[in-house]
Amino acid sequence: MSGKLIGVGVGPGDPELMTLKAHRLIAAAKVVAYPALAGTESFARAIAADAIAPGCHEIVMNVPMTPAREPAQSAYDDGAAKIATELDAGRDVVCLCEGDPFFYGSFMYLYARLKGRFEVEVVPGVTSITTCAARAGMPLAARNERLTVLPGPLPEDELRARIEGAESVAIMKVGRHLSKIRAVIDALGLTAQAMYIERASLADEVVLPLSDAPEKAPYFSMILLTKGADPWL
Amino acid sequence: MSGKLIGVGVGPGDPELMTLKAHRLIAAAKVVAYPALAGTESFARAIAADAIAPGCHEIVMNVPMTPAREPAQSAYDDGAAKIATELDAGRDVVCLCEGDPFFYGSFMYLYARLKGRFEVEVVPGVTSITTCAARAGMPLAARNERLTVLPGPLPEDELRARIEGAESVAIMKVGRHLSKIRAVIDALGLTAQAMYIERASLADEVVLPLSDAPEKAPYFSMILLTKGADPWL
Repeated sequence: MSGKLIGVGVGPGDPELMTLKAHRLIAAAKVVAYPALAGTESFARAIAADAIAPGCHEIVMNVPMTPAREPAQSAYDDGAAKIATELDAGRDVVCLCEGDPFFYGSFMYLYARLKGRFEVEVVPGVTSITTCAARAGMPLAARNERLTVLPGPLPEDELRARIEGAESVAIMKVGRHLSKIRAVIDALGLTAQAMYIERASLADEVVLPLSDAPEKAPYFSMILLTKGADPWL
Repeated sequence: MSGKLIGVGVGPGDPELMTLKAHRLIAAAKVVAYPALAGTESFARAIAADAIAPGCHEIVMNVPMTPAREPAQSAYDDGAAKIATELDAGRDVVCLCEGDPFFYGSFMYLYARLKGRFEVEVVPGVTSITTCAARAGMPLAARNERLTVLPGPLPEDELRARIEGAESVAIMKVGRHLSKIRAVIDALGLTAQAMYIERASLADEVVLPLSDAPEKAPYFSMILLTKGADPWL
């Protein structure tokens, strides 16, 4: 009998923001798999490190962070092949995913390659969005408010139109797009309602009003913006 | 010294989807507070039940689920006053919140009333959105895709415009708005890409293609829709 592929969200960074289920599955795993940006430590593995049992077999996918299709997709091909070998041998494989597996996560690429051939379970995790909201003291959405999640690399016009059409906005993957995003929010007169958050829930977390944000943002940074439309709050 | 108000997300329903931090804080709590729909058991308390210590003092807010401002806001006034009494006496109060405290949660009303006077910590939780995606086997958003979260009670025109403007859509609080939402999705030709989910992660969970959804939906139901725009998946 084949093993099961288990995609586990390990949450935003603080290991205590893993779910009980994630912790149990990782601690019991004989094989784990995770992505690492080429040349760096895997963030997902660092979050789960204390839960991984000694002797656990680890499959590392070295994924370059580039906007191009290749060589990232080849790295997932290789990773999926290694995972399939374990599954074929009857061993479950726990894939460690930053945040949540199905929310801007690389697990989706493994899922697309393996779901037809193997049993799959996905365990949701705490996302960076609600973590940033918690750390910034910023309620995200209430009652009938609309929340829109936008990736920072989107074009300026697109960002502007989408920010105008929602009460609450989370802009992910700010990184090198920070100055473009600031310009859009500023032009809409919304800078005073926006917060900038880096590495939420980690020891070196940064939480600032957008007006005080640094010039340069890391990839794991976010801008939250709420228009406070709910008259009951 | 005053106590601390701690808003804790207990996740979508399965108690194992609580975070390690939520579990630790609830188990250590001498006072917990939570909303209950008038006349019913509190869902948030049911999720956390096994973690609550014997002898823990419990503050229950009986909140009617009506679209009107009252008497719900009076219930939060009363609850906030009881919580403030505990905080003034130097006792921390752990507020139990379904899902995440700042994501369509009632904790926002307590937060608005108490944040100026007391220290507050918010602990994020797993939301129903990523849980529904996990249970439906439906990746939510990848790369530069936009995700929009819409409450079901929004008017038809508004729903249609927002669904058109996003690659992925989560429609919350479906309940009695199901037939209106189905009509909108159908008119857009997107029914085949939509899933219907009830009570995700609980034993009586329902996961169906939207075309097979029942005629009547409970309040805790959701529709997920993805247009599969990412050519890499």
